[in-house]
Amino acid sequence: MIPSTNFMYRIRPRSNPSTFLHHLNQTLNSFFLPSSGSRSPFSDFASDYQTVDECRRQEIREEESPGSEFDFKAYMLEKIGVVNQALDAAVPLRDPLILHEAMRYSLLSQGKRICPIVCLAACQLVGGDESTALPSACALEMIHAMSLMHDDLPCMDNDDLRRGRPSNHVVFGEHVSVTAGYALLARAFEHIATGTKGVAPGRIVRVVSELARLIGAEGVVAGQVADLKCGGNGQLDMGVEQLEYIHLHKTAALVEASAVAGAVLGGAREEEIERLRRYSRYAGLMFQVVDDVLDVTKSCAELGKTCGKDLVAGKATYRS
Amino acid sequence: MIPSTNFMYRIRPRSNPSTFLHHLNQTLNSFFLPSSGSRSPFSDFASDYQTVDECRRQEIREEESPGSEFDFKAYMLEKIGVVNQALDAAVPLRDPLILHEAMRYSLLSQGKRICPIVCLAACQLVGGDESTALPSACALEMIHAMSLMHDDLPCMDNDDLRRGRPSNHVVFGEHVSVTAGYALLARAFEHIATGTKGVAPGRIVRVVSELARLIGAEGVVAGQVADLKCGGNGQLDMGVEQLEYIHLHKTAALVEASAVAGAVLGGAREEEIERLRRYSRYAGLMFQVVDDVLDVTKSCAELGKTCGKDLVAGKATYRS
Repeated sequence: MIPSTNFMYRIRPRSNPSTFLHHLNQTLNSFFLPSSGSRSPFSDFASDYQTVDECRRQEIREEESPGSEFDFKAYMLEKIGVVNQALDAAVPLRDPLILHEAMRYSLLSQGKRICPIVCLAACQLVGGDESTALPSACALEMIHAMSLMHDDLPCMDNDDLRRGRPSNHVVFGEHVSVTAGYALLARAFEHIATGTKGVAPGRIVRVVSELARLIGAEGVVAGQVADLKCGGNGQLDMGVEQLEYIHLHKTAALVEASAVAGAVLGGAREEEIERLRRYSRYAGLMFQVVDDVLDVTKSCAELGKTCGKDLVAGKATYRS
Repeated sequence: MIPSTNFMYRIRPRSNPSTFLHHLNQTLNSFFLPSSGSRSPFSDFASDYQTVDECRRQEIREEESPGSEFDFKAYMLEKIGVVNQALDAAVPLRDPLILHEAMRYSLLSQGKRICPIVCLAACQLVGGDESTALPSACALEMIHAMSLMHDDLPCMDNDDLRRGRPSNHVVFGEHVSVTAGYALLARAFEHIATGTKGVAPGRIVRVVSELARLIGAEGVVAGQVADLKCGGNGQLDMGVEQLEYIHLHKTAALVEASAVAGAVLGGAREEEIERLRRYSRYAGLMFQVVDDVLDVTKSCAELGKTCGKDLVAGKATYRS
């Protein structure tokens, strides 16, 4: 899948080739850049790697030598398959049945699997074996699924539709849904601790610490609370700074955790971890910008979730 | 506090003296045993350590040599102070304020701190330094606080009173309460991973794995779901076996996690861990039996929570 001659990310000589992160960045950029010569809004962090112009030159080189072309879509489909299979095995159907059904309903529903794939790609990027990051990749998807179940609850966004299906609490009831959310969070940490093989225990402890911090009161949860405080108050004139706080915490923190976990498990040096942290944080923010735009430009059927809901709720978004 | 001549638990020569677990057991036993000559309902597991008769002889020896008497109440008060101080530092008041206020409201409210103290005592019992287990002890209380907030939610037990004060969701709203619960759970794992010092990382990974398993879909959450399934259905004729399943999971699993975490961090051998696992599981079950009896024999003011609620909800208890 990955051309062996492509050393796009020259972090250190032993780095394995991986163009996934570059292509993810380009996919996000493509929503905003009319021509490849424009400066990316993320040029500050991108300068750690390549400028947009350099990316374009790289693209041209790839186009000129089709044998080494990176097939982004095929890569994503392959990794989604790997992750889905691992998720299915990580949360098997067992007693209590209704609890595990609720956990699996949200966990195995059709999703982009961005966080798990960022984790696997970051591990590979720094020269690690992808398999060492697979349990953490699954854990990230468990946490993501939990946060979506949580967001949809009647006491939160009160959303009945998620990934093209009725939300978890609509199917299983609010009490089972809240409980299954806690169970997924606990299972995520258990899976990292028991499933990660071939890595020094100190690195596993580091992953637990990074992940727990970034999803907790300093990360995802902080963003959720700030978002709730603004929701429905018609704060459409909220400053970009405040909006950025919400999305850096609510969305980007999990992408950051994904890249950092993969890098740590792949054996990255501290400066490599920090570069990937910076990259992934802003890629996560960009993901949210795209999501906000899609929320008002796409139909519910295309999105698989209730569209225009932020507008209805009077929430500030990048679109507003 | 602990008499240096008392080697009650002769697990191995290097064991430090600790009579806490023995006294905890006796405190629980005292609810049921009219005379010290009776057999404990937990005699099977107790035989790993001492029979009730042996305990009584030990008591007599202690009474005869008052200089070495173990002051259970003073020990508990001292450890509660240590734990409370550590909890206060572990979850400081910071932004977002409402989130941290909600976390601290439940975490720092007056509680028995049984789980943290079992953790510290187990660590000391196997020869470890109590300070190595303090972050895990705090994590256990965070998880316990989270589970109480969760239990009290309108979609769960819908309880307005907890530890003598309005429940968390009554004060902060359901949305903040659910979110603060997730944040406490995440903080628990972060605190174990970042706060534990002087222990091989492999043992920290083991604690994360044990704790996550015992509070998740195989432990506490499984018990909560089984309890909810039975609640309000008037299943007062439920068999003891089913009732035991609920309480072994909902209550005893966290006590088990406490003892196992302390033992692992204290450097226990595998057979010592398994003995403490067995002891603590049944001590936890006994705790629930006592709780069920108190629920119908004590007033709300004495309990600091809504009393008789299981009876009203039509839930089966050991009393029924």
